[in-house]
Amino acid sequence: MVLNASPDIRQQIEQTPVLQPQTGVRSSPIAAVVLTGGDVDAIAGLLTLRERQPFSVLATSRVHQVLDDNPIFEVLARGIVARQRVMLDEPTPVPLPDGAASGLTVTLFAVPGKVPLYLEQPGAAPALEETDQTVGAAVSDGRATLFYVPSCAAMTPALADRLRGAAAVFFDGTLWTDDEMIRAGLGPKTGQRMGHMSVSGPDGTLAAFAGLAVRRRILLHINNSNPILLADSPERAQVAAAGWEVGYDGMELTL
Amino acid sequence: MVLNASPDIRQQIEQTPVLQPQTGVRSSPIAAVVLTGGDVDAIAGLLTLRERQPFSVLATSRVHQVLDDNPIFEVLARGIVARQRVMLDEPTPVPLPDGAASGLTVTLFAVPGKVPLYLEQPGAAPALEETDQTVGAAVSDGRATLFYVPSCAAMTPALADRLRGAAAVFFDGTLWTDDEMIRAGLGPKTGQRMGHMSVSGPDGTLAAFAGLAVRRRILLHINNSNPILLADSPERAQVAAAGWEVGYDGMELTL
Repeated sequence: MVLNASPDIRQQIEQTPVLQPQTGVRSSPIAAVVLTGGDVDAIAGLLTLRERQPFSVLATSRVHQVLDDNPIFEVLARGIVARQRVMLDEPTPVPLPDGAASGLTVTLFAVPGKVPLYLEQPGAAPALEETDQTVGAAVSDGRATLFYVPSCAAMTPALADRLRGAAAVFFDGTLWTDDEMIRAGLGPKTGQRMGHMSVSGPDGTLAAFAGLAVRRRILLHINNSNPILLADSPERAQVAAAGWEVGYDGMELTL
Repeated sequence: MVLNASPDIRQQIEQTPVLQPQTGVRSSPIAAVVLTGGDVDAIAGLLTLRERQPFSVLATSRVHQVLDDNPIFEVLARGIVARQRVMLDEPTPVPLPDGAASGLTVTLFAVPGKVPLYLEQPGAAPALEETDQTVGAAVSDGRATLFYVPSCAAMTPALADRLRGAAAVFFDGTLWTDDEMIRAGLGPKTGQRMGHMSVSGPDGTLAAFAGLAVRRRILLHINNSNPILLADSPERAQVAAAGWEVGYDGMELTL
């Protein structure tokens, strides 16, 4: 998640921004990056933000440990890019590169998930756990709050309570059905095995949010096998009928 | 460098191919990736080729060590993506994913260069060395050979001899002048400090190739401060007058 320093809360989906320089040859308005996990799709985009771009990386200890364990991330020179450890459930001010307050706070909270793919041990499937390895983020400007949960293996009662009545939630939309990858011949794993709850079905995301009264519900982190990506699919219509939007690159929203 | 399995020798500049699937939902025609160094711009693209795509990674021991030292590259599952160590100056057949011969051979050779940026030690500038850490690649189908040298700190007599009379050379075009980054306010480093020879000047690339009779000379790995990127710049005209082309994404050539 890339946090923009503008007064509006803007949301850049995924990790590769296409923002234009606003001042200077290589400037960008990116003031901070919040990591919600240590898997490739959450962290690899940092490698395109290197080269003397001052910003902060906010993440849990466990996710910072992943960066520390991979020397390639030293391209984010530590004297220029601040690595800030964020404790779970503690609202944390998001700094601007010059140290001033951005007016935004972020709160990271554990959601059910698994270890990053490349850290899995051979043999047994990794356990689902609810720790600082897979987190959601609540971003607030003191007036409105959005939730960003790009990876989540199950809706727990605590998570439902947290999201109830929210102004906006971005949520894991990886798969439509749990066996979708297998049926498409893309791999041997179910969604649960990959740490994702499905969008459809009795235990799916649409059902889990049905009573939560979230005003804007936006699916993201969508696998290319998921039929909701097709604007004219029945599944897209079903998602829309349930009050959900399908996220897209460059999406902005005003709360 | 991405080697295409098609009978033509095609050249995909940089590491992020935009090739379309040819069979199946996620297939690509990429059969092998040859790494010419361990810096981010040479290896980070591997992270977009993950997810059960069978291909080979051909590189020197030192560059494979960089991958081994960064657990994130384990997303290239070792049972699916073969990591093949290539000895310097030994013509090595490029395999197809099914083990068959591609008809291409690659020969890696040392060129002057430095340690990857993120492995530099604080303090003194890293020494330029000519080892298996920064290499060029000669790719041949037995009939024609192209050379691919995206990073090179100096033209040595041995390198000049190797390239003399070649059908095609892709060569490091990072900077136009050695102090270009400093003058543009982009950083404190000269091109030499970053391990690159400049395109212009008495020790530059245009001068170094003047007597080498290379048929097609193509600059790549071009920094966004280099004026040859502008089609109407005097520097671009100077490059063209010296018989050079400026590489671009998706460029193909037939030898």
